[in-house]
Amino acid sequence: MSEKLISPRVLKGFRDYLPEAMIAREQLMETARRVYRSYGFSPIDTPALEYSEILLGKGGEESDKQLFRFTDQGERDVAMRFDLTVPLARFAAQNIGVLGTPFKRYHIANVWRAEKPQKGRYREFMQCDFDTIGTDANGSDIETLLVIHDLLEAIGFERFTIRVNHRQLLNGLLDQLGLAEHSVTVLRALDKLPKIGRDNVITEMGAAGISADAAAGVLDFAALTGTPEEILNQVEPLVADSERGRDGLAKLRELFAVSSAAGIPSDRLQLDVSIARGLDYYTGTIYETFLTDLPGIGSVCSGGRYDNLAGLFTKEPLPGVGASLGLDRLLAAMEELGLIASTSTPAPVLITQFDATRLGDYLKLGRDLRAAGIATEVYPQAAKFNKQMKYANRKGFRAVVIAGEDEFSTGVWTVKDLTSGDQAQVTGSEIAAHLQAMLSQ
Amino acid sequence: MSEKLISPRVLKGFRDYLPEAMIAREQLMETARRVYRSYGFSPIDTPALEYSEILLGKGGEESDKQLFRFTDQGERDVAMRFDLTVPLARFAAQNIGVLGTPFKRYHIANVWRAEKPQKGRYREFMQCDFDTIGTDANGSDIETLLVIHDLLEAIGFERFTIRVNHRQLLNGLLDQLGLAEHSVTVLRALDKLPKIGRDNVITEMGAAGISADAAAGVLDFAALTGTPEEILNQVEPLVADSERGRDGLAKLRELFAVSSAAGIPSDRLQLDVSIARGLDYYTGTIYETFLTDLPGIGSVCSGGRYDNLAGLFTKEPLPGVGASLGLDRLLAAMEELGLIASTSTPAPVLITQFDATRLGDYLKLGRDLRAAGIATEVYPQAAKFNKQMKYANRKGFRAVVIAGEDEFSTGVWTVKDLTSGDQAQVTGSEIAAHLQAMLSQ
Repeated sequence: MSEKLISPRVLKGFRDYLPEAMIAREQLMETARRVYRSYGFSPIDTPALEYSEILLGKGGEESDKQLFRFTDQGERDVAMRFDLTVPLARFAAQNIGVLGTPFKRYHIANVWRAEKPQKGRYREFMQCDFDTIGTDANGSDIETLLVIHDLLEAIGFERFTIRVNHRQLLNGLLDQLGLAEHSVTVLRALDKLPKIGRDNVITEMGAAGISADAAAGVLDFAALTGTPEEILNQVEPLVADSERGRDGLAKLRELFAVSSAAGIPSDRLQLDVSIARGLDYYTGTIYETFLTDLPGIGSVCSGGRYDNLAGLFTKEPLPGVGASLGLDRLLAAMEELGLIASTSTPAPVLITQFDATRLGDYLKLGRDLRAAGIATEVYPQAAKFNKQMKYANRKGFRAVVIAGEDEFSTGVWTVKDLTSGDQAQVTGSEIAAHLQAMLSQ
Repeated sequence: MSEKLISPRVLKGFRDYLPEAMIAREQLMETARRVYRSYGFSPIDTPALEYSEILLGKGGEESDKQLFRFTDQGERDVAMRFDLTVPLARFAAQNIGVLGTPFKRYHIANVWRAEKPQKGRYREFMQCDFDTIGTDANGSDIETLLVIHDLLEAIGFERFTIRVNHRQLLNGLLDQLGLAEHSVTVLRALDKLPKIGRDNVITEMGAAGISADAAAGVLDFAALTGTPEEILNQVEPLVADSERGRDGLAKLRELFAVSSAAGIPSDRLQLDVSIARGLDYYTGTIYETFLTDLPGIGSVCSGGRYDNLAGLFTKEPLPGVGASLGLDRLLAAMEELGLIASTSTPAPVLITQFDATRLGDYLKLGRDLRAAGIATEVYPQAAKFNKQMKYANRKGFRAVVIAGEDEFSTGVWTVKDLTSGDQAQVTGSEIAAHLQAMLSQ
């Protein structure tokens, strides 16, 4: 056998998740799963590898270049999925007959893109999507908003705003201004507004043959502010001549009225008629979510309604609406806001070991505590007190349970709270209750 | 845009998970996570892609051939992981200084092998491993047994047997028989015993220069039966002259005594001195787990102790012990034993919708029920009763909540139990309690 060691390393743009990061990540995934399920969204999974034909051309040229694509042992042209939406389209086209509609699914899984690695950007990252497919009911759009709200709240955020828009409002305005065929130009120019300013946007629109008056009309529209009701009242005359404009208006009115009736605090909702998102993809309601205390990180949960999910795979029209939680962005935010407990152990309690002949007692106590719902690690062998305490502190246990010869002879164990430093003498049968009280503080 | 549709299909050997299968699978993963964590095992994750150099040669020639291996955009020779053990070795070699020992991790993730597809075998499948690294304490071996036991019980099995062995028992016997250098031959021959029978095994050993007497001694040893204590008493004189034999004997004695003291029922444990597993890999305790009602599916949770996890990546010796839950095999077993509820919805309750002007009330009730811990779907639009009931029955909801004009005027809703067919009239504030009682039956 060769003595030469292989250098242990990960590929550029990839990373390992060590316990501390992974515990927080799993917690976030679990919260997402719990909220999605509570609304009746079902989990699905699709293969990491697909025929390249399925994935190519769906995310644009840039996305094609970033595909991890190769020829497999059977000479098939295959690639790793770069998102969960294209696999969903393929999945829905293939299975919708069995699944029936409305079909509500969530999918939490890794995707791969050979992007240029940069801070906070990786070639493997997790997406966390939920969608309702096969219905154009506005009830699903409203529910999507409720899910986003309840998800953020369940994660632990209190100060956040969901910005909503409807693509048909702008379309209605363009209809009324006679600019219907210029919608892509207008959307692209509007998208640049925060960067290049109003005058440059008017110039750019002008270059595409849009009059300064019409351009100003679009910009005035995009600048509307106020409560959703105030904005909608101002929008009404601007889109009144357009059927799709009126439709968008009615759907947004219903959305704000119904979500308020369903208990969503109105200060967490905004109507922002300037947001567009996914120029070619979304056709109806649009969602973006911003953390009040960290607006700079951008939207942490975004989505919208689309007309036809799987048009490349099936003639059956599949409208839908959904959104995606920006898991990694959110984790970074939670870290910054101190919402993540820094621990490398999923178990709060460590039972130390001092008397090797009592291993059965230590392990039995561990099982008793687990049966009482307290995750508990047992140190695997008798070792010096300092060594075990060092281990406990480094991992971040909340409490250690200590028993040596003295404790076994008296039947009284020592429980030490590593946060407060307090120690208590507790009989064996009381340990679980004592720890429960400590952990529920 | 071309009108030609792309045929939606998955690659040979891959599969989609539809809700019914995925709900059961997620439940199993959650149970595994809960039990692993309750013992203080931490989650980790590693990239799906590694440098090929990291993975090649670690699983033998067959495994190398089955690698999904390619050259990436940066001309790197990369491959998709084929198991979670080699990535763990790489991960541990790289990070053990930060992690410290003992390091306890679990890892639940997909792996990929371009195997010949066959019934029940896929090219993408999930592994569900837990390991304790950096300690040779027998306490960790015993804990591994406890985890396997508590995991199977948490999943819902009552009738199962964990078969345990220790590799040093056989080594001790071979020492005493003067066959120490023949251990691989003996293990290979023993492995064939169930297939080719005693006489052929003796012939095969003879061909390798092992006397018929010595071969018979090995076979008599492998045929020992009885309680662990009975077997160990019979083994004692057969290995007494060998240090490693005595060591294996002492560790097994401690394992059975301590696991019994820790509350593991003795009828779920067996000592089977004939099992070997992973000829070149395991060096100490070995575990296999069989379901009493489905012995034919083989071991559903297997593992063992190894001397040196990461010898190819680091000079630091990293002994460890762990096991792996056969997730897909177990799911097949649970299906066969009727342990899986057949449902396509993670929410037990459906609120039907009949009055579109009351959407806010329907959605509000949904949020109230969720706040009471009851996962609840709301049908997205007003539709005919039969259509909504058909949807409810197909998905497998347990209960539907019905409110139309009459119900809203009286404030009394109808709750229908789809299992019993019973209907009840319940006021709005009583619905949660009524459903909780129904669901807890």
